Order: sequence, then C-alpha cells, then structure tokens
Amino acid sequence: MGFSARRCETSAMDTLVARLREGLPAEAVLTDSDVTASYAHDMASFCPAGAPAAVVLPRTVDQVRHVMRTAHEARVPVVPQGARTGLSGGANAIDGCVVLSLVRMDRILEIDPVNRYAVVEPGVVNADLSKAVAAHGLAYPPDPSSWEQCTIGGNIGTGSGGLCCVKYGVTAEYVLGLDVVLADGRLLTTGRRTAKGVAGYDLTRLFVGSEGTLGVVVGAVLALRPAPPRQLVLAAEFGSAAAAGDAVCRIMAEGHTPSLLELMDATTIAAVNKLTRMGLPESTRALLLAAFDTADPAADLAAVAELCRGAGATDVVPAEDDAESEMLLAARRSALVALEAVKGTTMIDDVCVPRSRLADLLDGVAAIAERHRLTIGVCAHAGDGNTHPTVCFDARDEDESRRARASFDEIMALGLDLGGTITGEHGVGVLKKEWLARELGQDGVELQRAIRQVFDPRGILNPGKVL
Amino acid sequence: MGFSARRCETSAMDTLVARLREGLPAEAVLTDSDVTASYAHDMASFCPAGAPAAVVLPRTVDQVRHVMRTAHEARVPVVPQGARTGLSGGANAIDGCVVLSLVRMDRILEIDPVNRYAVVEPGVVNADLSKAVAAHGLAYPPDPSSWEQCTIGGNIGTGSGGLCCVKYGVTAEYVLGLDVVLADGRLLTTGRRTAKGVAGYDLTRLFVGSEGTLGVVVGAVLALRPAPPRQLVLAAEFGSAAAAGDAVCRIMAEGHTPSLLELMDATTIAAVNKLTRMGLPESTRALLLAAFDTADPAADLAAVAELCRGAGATDVVPAEDDAESEMLLAARRSALVALEAVKGTTMIDDVCVPRSRLADLLDGVAAIAERHRLTIGVCAHAGDGNTHPTVCFDARDEDESRRARASFDEIMALGLDLGGTITGEHGVGVLKKEWLARELGQDGVELQRAIRQVFDPRGILNPGKVL
Repeated sequence: MGFSARRCETSAMDTLVARLREGLPAEAVLTDSDVTASYAHDMASFCPAGAPAAVVLPRTVDQVRHVMRTAHEARVPVVPQGARTGLSGGANAIDGCVVLSLVRMDRILEIDPVNRYAVVEPGVVNADLSKAVAAHGLAYPPDPSSWEQCTIGGNIGTGSGGLCCVKYGVTAEYVLGLDVVLADGRLLTTGRRTAKGVAGYDLTRLFVGSEGTLGVVVGAVLALRPAPPRQLVLAAEFGSAAAAGDAVCRIMAEGHTPSLLELMDATTIAAVNKLTRMGLPESTRALLLAAFDTADPAADLAAVAELCRGAGATDVVPAEDDAESEMLLAARRSALVALEAVKGTTMIDDVCVPRSRLADLLDGVAAIAERHRLTIGVCAHAGDGNTHPTVCFDARDEDESRRARASFDEIMALGLDLGGTITGEHGVGVLKKEWLARELGQDGVELQRAIRQVFDPRGILNPGKVL
Repeated sequence: MGFSARRCETSAMDTLVARLREGLPAEAVLTDSDVTASYAHDMASFCPAGAPAAVVLPRTVDQVRHVMRTAHEARVPVVPQGARTGLSGGANAIDGCVVLSLVRMDRILEIDPVNRYAVVEPGVVNADLSKAVAAHGLAYPPDPSSWEQCTIGGNIGTGSGGLCCVKYGVTAEYVLGLDVVLADGRLLTTGRRTAKGVAGYDLTRLFVGSEGTLGVVVGAVLALRPAPPRQLVLAAEFGSAAAAGDAVCRIMAEGHTPSLLELMDATTIAAVNKLTRMGLPESTRALLLAAFDTADPAADLAAVAELCRGAGATDVVPAEDDAESEMLLAARRSALVALEAVKGTTMIDDVCVPRSRLADLLDGVAAIAERHRLTIGVCAHAGDGNTHPTVCFDARDEDESRRARASFDEIMALGLDLGGTITGEHGVGVLKKEWLARELGQDGVELQRAIRQVFDPRGILNPGKVL
C-alpha cells in the first residue's frame, strides 16, 4: 500500500471512530490496538482473525442502532460478539471492522411465571439467566458446556445446544421473539410473547443460528419451563463403541426420555483423569452417562441399566447421591479442556448423525485418528447423535497441524456419509464455511445467499462468515 | 372481454392443459369446470375463491416438478392444496390457476423408532400417521381438530396447532427436514434427519407456515416422541371468564404441565348440547377441561382441582374412566361444528394472547358480541391463550354479515391490544391478509415480501395469500 492510500485509510478510520463516538459514551469505544486485538478471536484460536478498527460496547438499543447506521453509511463491516466462547470462528474480527460487543447489554428485563417467558438483553450470561429463573421455580434449559461464560445473544446467534437437549431441545426451541437491529439501523421486532403464533414467515427462527449475518439481536423473549426435579446419573462402561452405540439405540427405542445421555471415549477419559485426577475407569472403551429428572429417576435408571447390560456393558454404576451425579457431570464438562491439555491445541468437530449411526461414527473417527497418527478424543451428546471428535495437536508442528486439518475434514465427510450434518450446535463460522455447500447443495446455498442479500444488501454484517 | 381476447385466453388455457398432460397421467388432470369448482374452497366458505383452469393430482415428486416447471414457463398461478380443512382461505383457488392437490401423495415412507422420525409424503392424513406410529409405541403429537381429515402437508403449510400443544408444541417443532419443489421446478432438500443441526439458515422453519407461497412441500421428515400414557380428563365449571382465566394462570404458575387445557364458554356449551345432546352443564359461564398423561394423572388432576376451587370453580368433576374422558374431549372437538349449526355460517377467529390475558380477551369478546347483537361462541386452547371466538351468522342476512365481519376484526384488534397475535394456528390466508401488517409492522412486511420474491420471482405461488 502506498503512503497516500494508507493516509486515506487512516483518515477514513478516524472519521468512522469520530462518528461512532457521537452516539456512544467515551468508554464504549475502544481503539487502542492492544485492547482491540483482545477482541479478535473466539475460542477457535486457530481460525484466521483480522484486526478491528474499533470495538464498541453499547448499553442500549439506541446505541446499537447508532453503530449500525454509522457502519452502514461508511460501508464498514460489523462483527457482532458475545462472550467469544464460540468454537467456529464466527465471532472472529475482520481487518478494519467494528467489533460490536453486546456483553454490556446484560439485563434480565422480565421473568413471567404465568406466561413462562423471560425478556432479556443479549449480553445476559446463560448461567445468570438459569439462576434467575430458578428463583421462580422455572428453568431455561439450553445448557452449552460454556454456560457459565456464554451469553444468550451468542447462544441465539449460534443456535447452541448443550447436554440437556436430548430431552429439552436446543436454543431455537426457546426463542419466541426477537428485537433485531437491521444492517441499516432499523429496529425490527419478530415473533411474539404468546405460546403459539403463525402470522407470516418465521423470521425469528431465521435469525436463530444466523451467526450475526442477518441482523444484531438486541433483545429476546425466551420460553421457560417448570424447573424439573434434580437429575440422577448412571455410568455404564463398554468394551467397544459398537456396544455403547447399541445401548443408546436400545434406550431410545424402548421409549425412554433421559435428561442427559453422554458418551466419552477412552482418549477423553484418560485426558480427564490426567487433568482432574477423578479416577474414571481407564480400561473402558466408552463410558456412557445417562440421567433422568423424572418423578422416579431410580426406577428409570434401573431400566436403563438393564438395557446397558443387554448391550454388553462391562459395568454399570448408578450414582448413589447428588454429589456422585455432580462428579460424573463435572467429568463430562471438563472433557474439552482436558483434551486441550493433551497437545496444547484442539480442533473440536461437531458432527451430528442419526443416533443409530453413532457407533459407525465412533469407529470411523478411530480409524481416521490411526491413519493420521493423531490423538482424537470423542465426547458426545450420544442421545442426540451429536459428537465432538476433538483433534489434539501441537500447533507449532506443521506436519501435525496439516494432518489435524485433514482428519477434521475427513470427520465431516464421514458425518455426511452417515446421513448427518457438519454442525449440530457449534455453527459454521469460518471453520466450516467451505463444507456448508457440501451439505446444503448449490441451490440451497444460492437461496441462503439471496436471503442474506435481502437483510444486508451492502454486505456489512459479519462478512466472510457462514456463506 | 372481447371475442378475440377470450379466444386467446382459451387457447392459452388449452396449451397449459396440454403441457400439464405431457407429464401426468390422464386421470391426474381435471378440467371439467363442475369438478374443478369443487376444489375452489377450503373451509372458510365465505372467503373469496376463483375458478381454477385445472386441478392436478400428482402421485410423484417428478410429477409435481413437471407441474411447477409448466406453470413457471406459462406464468400461471399455482395453488397448493391438501384436504382443504383450512380456516383462512389459504388454499382457495384463484381464477385461471392450477390447483395442485397433494392428496394422492399419501405414503408413509419410513418410521424409525431408534431415531424417532417418520418420512412421509405431504398427502398423508394426520390421523393415519398417528395410528401408524402408535403401532411402534410412538406419537406424532400435533392434533388439529380436523386431524381425521387434514394432511401433513396442510399442517406444515399452515403451521397447525391442536389440543395437545400446551404440553407438546405445534407442527413446526416436529418438522426436521423437507423436500420442496421450488417455483421453477427445482427440488430442494432442507434440514436433516438428525436430532440437532445448525448448518446455515433454517429454511425448514421458513417453509413451515408459509402457506404454499415459498414452495411446494413434497416430503417431510417428522420428529416423533414416545407414546405417552393415556390422558385422564377433569372438567371444572366457573361462574365467570375471569375465574376460569384465573384458574388457568394458577395451574401454569404452579408449574403443572397438563397435556390439554381447554375452555368452552356458555354459548359453545349450549351449541354442543343442542347438536349432541351431551347434557353439558348449561348454567356455567366457562367450562375448563384439564388433562394429564403423566405417570400419576389422578394425583395431578387432584392438585389442579384444588387450584380450580381456589379460583372459584362452582363444580369440579374428574372423569372416572377413559370413556368419560373421551366424552369430554368429544364435546370439545364438536364445538366448531356445533357453533356452525347455530346460524348456518361461522367466522372462526384464532387470536392467541399471553395466557394471563385470557380472561380479558373473553370479556372483551362478550362485549363485542353484545355491541353487535351477535352470537359469538368461544372455545379456546386455554393453556396456550389461543382462543377461537366463533362468530355465528346468517350469510343471507346482509346486515348481520356486515356486523359479523366488523366483530371479527374487532376481536383481532383486541388480541393485538392484549399483546397477542392475529393467528395462533390457522394462518393468514386471504382472511387476515389486511391484518398482517398491523401485527408485523411495515419493515416486517417488506422483509417478508422480499423473502417471498427470492423464492418466487415470478409470483406464481399462491399469489394474493398471506402478504
């Protein structure tokens, strides 16, 4: 870049920042490059990320509208962000963009026990909402592993899942209505506060999982449920993925509705033991955790234990009390951090297959790991067929990094071959963008691009993400 | 119209029919105007309807594609139809259109108990699917009142609800993936067969409730649930709408999850008694039916009975057995037919409000009925706040018809004032088209129109409906 072009760009950036400051308090506009760089990445640290021109931290809807109007006029890209716990690079900065962080819009505006909804700002942390509604005897079920950090806005942007989905479903099923600031700064309200509604196309659902490419969510009406009884957990050990997969099929075919049905493979168990010294059984090939929050969870667990034995479980251990249940869940929740400790870096896949193909996926991933001489640990929301094969590698080792990337792609191809999807709950971001067309087909991609164009004709909303 | 223009039009119609016949068996193309006229209307008999140029009854996806390609080339409107049990005129014919009836595509292609889904063609009747999956110990919950006639394709097009939604949700929540023939004949597959998935924008959900304006659904993957235990029903009588509404609020605020929570007002009770001689209690102002399909429904009903008494119920009668439960449900299911018998014609509204405003809506409707000197019976999915104020009138009486229409509109205005929606489960069709903008706002309507334009640039898919 020549001197005059650079000066021109600097001047444009100064103008942009000056315009942003006109509608935002001084402390809400960050431009120090050391500071803004700390907003460049979500948790997919190996995904490319650019240098933001500014980071803005609005507290009100009007301030967000000002940001979008300003960026729209200047045709500057805007990257909406929550807590940056995403795993696909969907919130990663783009060179010269405005990072629009919603974390300061963190108020719970209303909790309505009769109508069973909450009205929240996007920056509310998932766990804070869960605790607040629990005080009313209610639950907001979606529980991503990052629930103590991640925000509702991020959950909506990604269409997040979690551990309880096998019984309670995903984020999308809890979003009744949204307030969205559009690319040009207009404020759109979608959906409703009622239990049902079919007035026009479902724009609410279109925004859920759109990863900040269609608009900026500044408010949400979320459905709540009565708080369930505390769940009781059982652990079952299996000598093979096939046996564990068979157990999952038997449990679901028998009509059980566990509140959680999780799986960890031997690699994950070893990693968790190393990190936490929990003493999980390392001789097993697959550890299945099942839980029930029914009126009589012990009876349900007994039935499931019998099905696990029928599928060849080598040991079945029901938790004796809440503390033991909690320990088993903590082991599962620590899996990704434990796997990250193995080699320093992980690529976490998110392939979801019909649950009847779970064993095929697990065996296929093991074969991929062996072929590429890699450590790939698998933990899975087994009841949903949603697996997280996690490739452990040393990012400083070029060859290993290359093999890691290759195996990551092969796992997605395997998932599609098995009738699955490349992403069950983490989203596309930049990580899986090239793979989206393989799942959707060319017509699907074209329609989705055309819809994006409707909402964002200038292409300023999170460009380069999703598709 | 001059002679030559008419000849020109006739000739164009002949060409269209000839082209349609090229890809369809002879018996699948109907052109006799007496026959085609019988396909002109859904059940909103007072809504305007045109004369179709032809009715086609394809049996295969390829035949549907042929129909759409033909219509697209000729720029002829296409009106997709199921069983025509709709209540908003959404399936009503347009002059010169091709009515595309999907009722002969009625095969259940797959029922998978492990993965808990069914793959069906659009013409499968709701009740047939329910019976087929019941044989596998599974349930397809959405149960519109017309479930013995209506088709899955119609349910998807409308985003239908039903009696069980208060516990099990609406059609949209059960549609995992779709095969859709687009306006130009291309075949698009959306969604997935997996429990979860967030790959790209949720086009599946966009099609659900789009009333045939974005594409023609030719196949669906539907989520299934384990069949619940048989439900036990309780009837509670109230002296006022306020008391019944209060009972609904108490039941939901206490964290109960009934499988059904329905309400009938005095007008509806009298109409049902007249039609069925069931002997429902005519002295009551509002009859509430609550049901549970839990492990111990009698205990849940006892708790609900206590709450009803606390809210001022004048009598509470639990069903003693399945037969009594079934009788109460039959009374509720006969409500709309019974109200139709009152004056010959009904306009069935479908306003859904937050359940805490249910009593306000009921009182407001009573005031509207009085002001317009009309009989308006209300039955409601009370647990969802979804009411069906049903205006009874004599269509031959011009003044009464005018007052009926005015009251119908006032009820929608009231619903919006109470924070509700103009349609909870019946759709917009032609009946509520003018009202949609009042609910969505101008920006919302513009965005929806632009999305429609993406899918149907020539405007041939069910034009004049929804927006």
